[in-house]
Amino acid sequence: MIHNVLKDVKVVLASESPRRKILLEMLGLKPLVIPARIDETLTALLAHKQAMLHARSKTDAVARFLDHDALIIGSDTIVCVDHQNLGKPNGKVQAAQYLRMLSGRSHSVYTGVSLRYQNRVLTDYERSTVTFDPLSEAEIDAYIRTGEPFDKAGAYGIQGYGAQFIRKIQGCYFNVMGFPVNLFYRMLEDFLHD
Amino acid sequence: MIHNVLKDVKVVLASESPRRKILLEMLGLKPLVIPARIDETLTALLAHKQAMLHARSKTDAVARFLDHDALIIGSDTIVCVDHQNLGKPNGKVQAAQYLRMLSGRSHSVYTGVSLRYQNRVLTDYERSTVTFDPLSEAEIDAYIRTGEPFDKAGAYGIQGYGAQFIRKIQGCYFNVMGFPVNLFYRMLEDFLHD
Repeated sequence: MIHNVLKDVKVVLASESPRRKILLEMLGLKPLVIPARIDETLTALLAHKQAMLHARSKTDAVARFLDHDALIIGSDTIVCVDHQNLGKPNGKVQAAQYLRMLSGRSHSVYTGVSLRYQNRVLTDYERSTVTFDPLSEAEIDAYIRTGEPFDKAGAYGIQGYGAQFIRKIQGCYFNVMGFPVNLFYRMLEDFLHD
Repeated sequence: MIHNVLKDVKVVLASESPRRKILLEMLGLKPLVIPARIDETLTALLAHKQAMLHARSKTDAVARFLDHDALIIGSDTIVCVDHQNLGKPNGKVQAAQYLRMLSGRSHSVYTGVSLRYQNRVLTDYERSTVTFDPLSEAEIDAYIRTGEPFDKAGAYGIQGYGAQFIRKIQGCYFNVMGFPVNLFYRMLEDFLHD
C-alpha cells in the first residue's frame, strides 16, 4: 500500500489543487505542497500529451529548488470533448459554454502524472469517460452560482454539487477528481522498485 | 439542483453511515441524522431487492416518529460477487475472506434508496461495477490494519485507502461510496413534482 511504500520518503506535491492534496492525505501521506506556477495554456497537442507535458513541467519547476531525496509529484487534468481540450474556464460566460458542450453526452478526462525521485522521472496518464445528464439553462445558471466551476478543468467538479448531474463514469473516479490514485500506486511500485 | 429543489424541505437521513451524511452535505443539504436500527441480516433475496427492502425499512422505522412534512431518506448498500451478497464483515477473518473474493476481478455494488414524504414512498436502486487489482496477502493484511474495512459492505471503502486498489468503475461512483447522488436527484424530481 502507498503509505507503506512511501513511509521513509519525503513527498512534495507540485500542484496547488486542494483536491490533489486531499487525495494524497486520504492515502495516509502528508505532502509538502509547493504550487508550481507553469504556463498552462493549451496548445495543439492531444489531450493526454498536453496533460503529461504540464505534469512534467510542474515537477521540473519544483525540482530545481529541492534535494534529490524527495519524491516530487506533478499532475494536470484536461477535459476533452469533440477533440477540443478544455482547461479551467476564464469566467462565467466560458463556464456556461463549457457546460453546454458537456450536457447530455459523454466526454473524456485525462490526467497526467509525473514522478521525480533521485534524478529519475516517470510520466504517465489516465483516461476516464464521464456521462452528463442533459442540463437545462436554469441548471447551468444555478450551478455556476455555486462558484464550483471556476478552478476546475471543463468547468465542473465531480466531487461537489456537480455530482448530481453525472449519470455514470467509466474508469477511475479519482482521475476525474484530478489525481488517478490507482495509476499512482502502480507507477510508484514500478518506480521505487526499479 | 438538489439544494434548490429541497430549499424549503426538512431532510432526515435514516442511516448512521457517515459517508451518506457527507454526501448530502456535499450537495448543500443539512440533514437531521436519525440512525434507523433495522435488522440488516441478508436473506435469499437478490441484491437489488435486498438493498431496496433495507432502505425502505429504514425510512419506515424513522417515519413513525416524525411529522409528515419531512423528507425521509433511507439507503442501504450491498456488494455482490458470484451471486453472493456481502454486507459488512463481522471481523478480521471475514474481512480478509471478502477481500480475497474481490481480488483481481469485477463485482457489482447495489444501493437501494427509499424516499418518504407526506405519506408517499418512492424506492429505487442503482448498480455499479467495480474492478479490483489483484491483492497480495500482504496488501490484504495491511489494508485490514488501516481499520477501514469494518463498517463497509464488502469490506472496502472506495473513498479511502481502498481507492488505490480499484482499477476502474463503471456507473455511479457515489453509489459505490454508499449513496447514488444522480439517482437521488432524478428520484426527487419525479417525487416532488408529481
